[in-house]
Amino acid sequence: MKLSNRVNSMKYSPIRKLSPYAQAARDKGLRVLGLNIGQPDIETPPQFFEAMKNFDGKVLKYSESRGETVLLDSFIKYYKSIGIEFEHSNMIVTNGGSEGLYFSLYAICNPDDEVIVPEPFYTNYSSFTDIAGCKVRPITTYGEDGFHLPSREKFEEIISDKTKAILISSPSNPTGAVYTREEIEMLADLCKEHNLFLISDEVYREFVYDDPEFFSPLEIEDISQRVILIDSISKRYSACGARIGLVASKNKEIIDAIMKLAQSRLCVPTLEQIGAATLYETPQSYFDEVKKEYQARRDVLFEGISAIKDVQVKKPTGAFYMIIGLPIKNAENFCKWILEEYSYENTTLMMAPAEGFYLTEGLGVNEVRLSYCINIEDLKLAVKILESALIRYKETQE
Amino acid sequence: MKLSNRVNSMKYSPIRKLSPYAQAARDKGLRVLGLNIGQPDIETPPQFFEAMKNFDGKVLKYSESRGETVLLDSFIKYYKSIGIEFEHSNMIVTNGGSEGLYFSLYAICNPDDEVIVPEPFYTNYSSFTDIAGCKVRPITTYGEDGFHLPSREKFEEIISDKTKAILISSPSNPTGAVYTREEIEMLADLCKEHNLFLISDEVYREFVYDDPEFFSPLEIEDISQRVILIDSISKRYSACGARIGLVASKNKEIIDAIMKLAQSRLCVPTLEQIGAATLYETPQSYFDEVKKEYQARRDVLFEGISAIKDVQVKKPTGAFYMIIGLPIKNAENFCKWILEEYSYENTTLMMAPAEGFYLTEGLGVNEVRLSYCINIEDLKLAVKILESALIRYKETQE
Repeated sequence: MKLSNRVNSMKYSPIRKLSPYAQAARDKGLRVLGLNIGQPDIETPPQFFEAMKNFDGKVLKYSESRGETVLLDSFIKYYKSIGIEFEHSNMIVTNGGSEGLYFSLYAICNPDDEVIVPEPFYTNYSSFTDIAGCKVRPITTYGEDGFHLPSREKFEEIISDKTKAILISSPSNPTGAVYTREEIEMLADLCKEHNLFLISDEVYREFVYDDPEFFSPLEIEDISQRVILIDSISKRYSACGARIGLVASKNKEIIDAIMKLAQSRLCVPTLEQIGAATLYETPQSYFDEVKKEYQARRDVLFEGISAIKDVQVKKPTGAFYMIIGLPIKNAENFCKWILEEYSYENTTLMMAPAEGFYLTEGLGVNEVRLSYCINIEDLKLAVKILESALIRYKETQE
Repeated sequence: MKLSNRVNSMKYSPIRKLSPYAQAARDKGLRVLGLNIGQPDIETPPQFFEAMKNFDGKVLKYSESRGETVLLDSFIKYYKSIGIEFEHSNMIVTNGGSEGLYFSLYAICNPDDEVIVPEPFYTNYSSFTDIAGCKVRPITTYGEDGFHLPSREKFEEIISDKTKAILISSPSNPTGAVYTREEIEMLADLCKEHNLFLISDEVYREFVYDDPEFFSPLEIEDISQRVILIDSISKRYSACGARIGLVASKNKEIIDAIMKLAQSRLCVPTLEQIGAATLYETPQSYFDEVKKEYQARRDVLFEGISAIKDVQVKKPTGAFYMIIGLPIKNAENFCKWILEEYSYENTTLMMAPAEGFYLTEGLGVNEVRLSYCINIEDLKLAVKILESALIRYKETQE
């Protein structure tokens, strides 16, 4: 009984891959600082829990396949507040941003079709294309450019008859890059010229620091029929465990097609939607506080990392990730070694080896992705651990 | 921008297809009895809601991809109580039974591989194979046989190199058939002889009436590595809106492969799992009451339908569905006509045309699937509406 090629070619998550090593470290009595995962420690707005507690139904019924009306209404208000007009028929509530992504890929790609994705990219993008039998065609971005997009010509070199879409994440997981208006307009032009969809994963929309303004492809009127928006409440409201996302488009044909996929899984959990519908009422002060906190964390982590000898890093401007280059051969071995062999003040460190975020063989081997979802004191400690571990690791390798 | 073949070939749900007609009837002021959908009206055990209300975390975090430990533990206890031994590594919590089903299909089927499914079948089985690029190979069952399985020879006629699995639902949605021990043993033999998986959708396990004992392929020791179990709390505890299911197998290789798929969607909602973990404590009296109620409903509906002239029906022994043959040409037209043109005591009827449950062209055209998830008084009224509507419809057709 052989398993399918698609599942054999899929990889285990690079973010969760080292979990057994972290557990072993904890079992030895060590504290493990988790810089591997984008699980915010920020409090979820309390009205989410209150709404669920106030539910007074006796029967937990199926929801609508498109989503609960109260939640769709609250998404409409949210988008209106950022200048985007949607109606119910433009949107389908999904099980996290993930489901919106694979629904979109299933709806537009035949087997062997290609989707161009700037690499390094969120690994599950290629998990979803593996499932759908289509392919990610990576276009490499580089740390020294702050992981910004390559030129239009580089894109045109790899666009073919098989290309169906360009898929971007901005602010980016895993790089923290925020694409400029000019970059987004370049992509828009490409999509128009080559008749492509533009899938825009905007789940980190609010997490933009310093100067750059977030610019969405949704703001470009004449490609509105090409843009598929992927969104989620997970990061915005620190509600990852609710698994509430959204796929939306001005193109009703694509939303109608995705509706068939949505009907096949019946619906998203009813109570989570009722909770999520209240989140639109979250006051601006919550976001201001959260943004201030993440920005301070980014600064502390960036300054700390920059001061470590021979480590390459550019200041990221969004989300809560950075990819850094280490002065070692193989980051995965190093990450395992830290968890197994190294501690400082009875504490060790879990990082995500960045190789898993690249599709091109051989790239990212000496890189790690760090998330800054832990508090500032712990981030400072993490920098110290990394710095001293690098010195010790070099000694052990000599 | 063309959409994918897979999504073009998918159909909208036959169960939800007539919803706009039902809404129009409601807008005219009519009551609509919903015999189309398997949404139980039974109360969800209250400890589910209590557990969610008692959650005192401040951050709604991701759960584990395999599922919350408390929920996995409660599933272990549940299976132990019915004589089946599972460990955590045998199970993955899924977004409803649906996700377990498509995870299983994605994990075992390459494009163009086939899965044999007795028809009529739950439509989404073929939605999932459409997505995965594999195929349902239907094997027809008939109302006059109570929708029991055809002979072993009939199966062998359609088993080929492309066949990867046999997929069954027993007690069956949409037919209400419960396969006998002999039928299950015949399938087990086939799977051994032809090296196939046996996917067993047992979400209606508790809903068995009259004599027949439910028999699961899990009870056959020497095919334990071939059986993939699909389960869900939706019907058992009347908690459809929780979207908590389970995929389980003694074959750890298949569960490990499905784990990659589970990681790609991160996790199932955390709070729903915490609620679901309490359901194992539901007292036996709950099930006794529920079963008594459904059995009484089945009897009322069956007796009522049997008494209608020229309607074909055999008494189903499980789940809460029956498929009946009507003395008309096209059941979908009739179902629309009732909603648009007919009422009795200011009430009309929504049924699911059964054609959508068949894959073989031309079958089920005069059939409807009825669910008995509404109370007995309404079921009696539904029978009256159907009987009088058939008479009137015939007049309009003459």
